[in-house]
Amino acid sequence: MTATLVIGPYSDIDTAALKEAFDPVFLDHPEKLSGLDGAARGAITALAYKGHHAVGMTEMDLLPNLALIANYGVGYDAIDVKAASTRGIRVTNTPDVLNDDVADLAVAMLLMQGREMVQASEWARSGNWKTAGEYRLNRKVSGGRAGIVGLGRIGREIADRLAAFKMDIHYFARSEKPTPGWTYHADPVSLARAVDYLVIALVGGAETEKFVSRKVIDALGPRGVVVNISRGTTVDERALLEALEEGRIAGAALDVFLNEPDIDPRFYRLENVVIQPHQGSGTFETRAAMGQLQRDNVAAHHAGRTLLTAVN
Amino acid sequence: MTATLVIGPYSDIDTAALKEAFDPVFLDHPEKLSGLDGAARGAITALAYKGHHAVGMTEMDLLPNLALIANYGVGYDAIDVKAASTRGIRVTNTPDVLNDDVADLAVAMLLMQGREMVQASEWARSGNWKTAGEYRLNRKVSGGRAGIVGLGRIGREIADRLAAFKMDIHYFARSEKPTPGWTYHADPVSLARAVDYLVIALVGGAETEKFVSRKVIDALGPRGVVVNISRGTTVDERALLEALEEGRIAGAALDVFLNEPDIDPRFYRLENVVIQPHQGSGTFETRAAMGQLQRDNVAAHHAGRTLLTAVN
Repeated sequence: MTATLVIGPYSDIDTAALKEAFDPVFLDHPEKLSGLDGAARGAITALAYKGHHAVGMTEMDLLPNLALIANYGVGYDAIDVKAASTRGIRVTNTPDVLNDDVADLAVAMLLMQGREMVQASEWARSGNWKTAGEYRLNRKVSGGRAGIVGLGRIGREIADRLAAFKMDIHYFARSEKPTPGWTYHADPVSLARAVDYLVIALVGGAETEKFVSRKVIDALGPRGVVVNISRGTTVDERALLEALEEGRIAGAALDVFLNEPDIDPRFYRLENVVIQPHQGSGTFETRAAMGQLQRDNVAAHHAGRTLLTAVN
Repeated sequence: MTATLVIGPYSDIDTAALKEAFDPVFLDHPEKLSGLDGAARGAITALAYKGHHAVGMTEMDLLPNLALIANYGVGYDAIDVKAASTRGIRVTNTPDVLNDDVADLAVAMLLMQGREMVQASEWARSGNWKTAGEYRLNRKVSGGRAGIVGLGRIGREIADRLAAFKMDIHYFARSEKPTPGWTYHADPVSLARAVDYLVIALVGGAETEKFVSRKVIDALGPRGVVVNISRGTTVDERALLEALEEGRIAGAALDVFLNEPDIDPRFYRLENVVIQPHQGSGTFETRAAMGQLQRDNVAAHHAGRTLLTAVN
């Protein structure tokens, strides 16, 4: 019997590579676990997981000999790591390989929001340029004030890029970090008050839920723009929608939402919101690297070697 | 009689400021010049010009006492500077104040092209994300190879930004320049062969017409992307369209075109082209600075002071 279980929507390339490496059992959703017979479940020692559905005590109870959950993605908030640790199950993720892509998307979304580039593209393509003349003026981005919420590895990549746009960089983190003169804020409200662009680069999970609260959003002010490439959960989305609808902030640029992909339709009615379908790490190059790192962790487990990127 | 003539489509703010400063004659197009009577034309010593229609010998002949053409914009290819110099007419432009905005737009267009962000936005907004699932994978931008054609002030701003995306920077210029280790190419074909992204930051005018030739475009290869924020004239547009339609290059991101705003409709049929309606400098902040610099040049002329930004 196979010792590896694969759950999630994998690309053809990743599916083929997983098959080749581990000849695993494939499932498309964690809820299908109970459909496997006891012997098959008992044989599984490693789970390669991709998805945002919860993997918690129920799923772990169904896999009595599970020793590894290898997550595809840097954010492992879908996995109950505490429950895993209690059972002696190790968890790995795929950090770093996606930092560049996510930072690229964050910076591009910020520029697109300020320069109204989706609207300007539609203006040209619809024929308005020809008949109604120049697209309206918009907002200078270079030289603005940017606040990074969470100066981890991705936050740092974003800040390094924005610095090249001559932006004044501020940040919130649990503690002050060595930076090239960027301004530290111990409090996110103080950060929001100091900047025009608030870029959220927190980890997901219960600890950061609604960390960007109504109070933080209100502190941004009428020129404020919220950029989120982390998780929908990190923002008080109801407060964000209200601030956008009432014009109390200037706009938003969002790659992540609550309840993806069935997001709140109120976002679609807002012209000042750049919407991306959670594609931060969505390049061929990076997804290939993420798949490889996930398989390397599974292979390390089966060979009794040290896991490459363990989180517990 | 007034000594200042204003030609072009100015914003309400600029129109009011021009009126306040010079109480000028306003025309919307150079061809309206012949409609002014001889006395009015003879009184004009300064022309504040905004537009892309030619201002040449015909127009100058109609203004016998013209001593200054103050252009709104850094590119003054609409103005026949040689003819102006022959007549002792000084020409000024509005350099530098727009470098940041144009560089911002170039970098954002490049990212949007690689990450398919207009298409991904439509994917999410149209409901496809909800029903058809994740948007398709696209292309990693950070770490790519970028070639700047023309390392003037704007080209330099673009290169500085792209360097923060860990790009390998190559450039063409008339002569090698002091850079942080970027690779100089004396020949644009050699530059195109070395890079994936070719970013055109040349001046306009007859000297650079079709500088990015069919041969340069062919040298880019199937991963090549052309980014143009300079003038439509700097590219062999027919060769570019053919290369795009035949899939011989990967795509383009264009803010400028031949015959704007009535551009070749073949561009609209190409999904791999990011189109912007010539809005490189189109922010409130920068357009205000451009208008101010134009008026400062006109005021310097009338007061007999040194012109701020003369080009001849």
